[in-house]
Amino acid sequence: MITLEDVKRDIRTVPDFPQKGIMFRDLTSVFQKPECMQYFEETLANEYKDKGITKVIGIESRGFIMGSIMACRLNAGFVPIRKKGKLPAETVEASYTKEYGIDVIQMHKDALCPDDVVLIHDDLLATGGTMKAAIELAKKFGVKKVYVNFLVELDGLNGRAILGDDVEVSSLIHY
Amino acid sequence: MITLEDVKRDIRTVPDFPQKGIMFRDLTSVFQKPECMQYFEETLANEYKDKGITKVIGIESRGFIMGSIMACRLNAGFVPIRKKGKLPAETVEASYTKEYGIDVIQMHKDALCPDDVVLIHDDLLATGGTMKAAIELAKKFGVKKVYVNFLVELDGLNGRAILGDDVEVSSLIHY
Repeated sequence: MITLEDVKRDIRTVPDFPQKGIMFRDLTSVFQKPECMQYFEETLANEYKDKGITKVIGIESRGFIMGSIMACRLNAGFVPIRKKGKLPAETVEASYTKEYGIDVIQMHKDALCPDDVVLIHDDLLATGGTMKAAIELAKKFGVKKVYVNFLVELDGLNGRAILGDDVEVSSLIHY
Repeated sequence: MITLEDVKRDIRTVPDFPQKGIMFRDLTSVFQKPECMQYFEETLANEYKDKGITKVIGIESRGFIMGSIMACRLNAGFVPIRKKGKLPAETVEASYTKEYGIDVIQMHKDALCPDDVVLIHDDLLATGGTMKAAIELAKKFGVKKVYVNFLVELDGLNGRAILGDDVEVSSLIHY
């Protein structure tokens, strides 16, 4: 089995994407390697296997990739959070402020129930705005507990600080 | 283990989404049930396990869900196809005509190589425009063989006809 350092070495850094000054950490260069997919799968399944997770929520769209895999491995259901207007049935929603306006994310109204123990997954934690809104969404259902997982966390942006003390946050790789 | 009929019964049909006259087949109602995720995983892994698949391509964003799971189960790499402008590194692209204009999809230039045996996955086959462009993209890399998989196929729209005779197309559920 490869190591975390091997995986980190395979992450591609793209300067000035999506805008000038941002060093974009691109995980597609990792996902395309079978041994890295296996590493993520085993490591994350191992981390969460005893938590009683019943639903894994993936945030559109990169959070779907490892989110759905974790759902399968943990024998949980998979629930997508999507941008406004993409989910066809009745939804609940939450909004967050971005640099140039407000974004709204939605989840189906029948996606969770109060008995659920929830793991929300996204690939990368930057300023944390999307994840904060996602946690707010999950809490609207009165779920038992919320875990939050990222593959990569950009420590310098301190996004973790806005996610709240009552959720357990974990990231595999730190920059 | 549940049956295909059980899964089909759990698919939600939403009338008039995303526009009047369309009966939208919504798989989120299926993904949120662990037993349905397990069914998809086992059935699809079984179908493709002897094909020598080296890369599974998921089409953004619903195709990421089962696409990434299949990649893990087949010990293949996972490659995303995304809408124009979302992938950060150098890309190849293909376009297709929609009702009101042209859409462009992209894949990273280093995502595939001529030795690859490719499985392209999306959740649903309707008119087939997106998948036709995705097949065209994969072929630009000179890959050995292309398999195409959908969870749901709307037979009445005959999207399969435009995908070409040299790809092997398979769908789990038909309407």
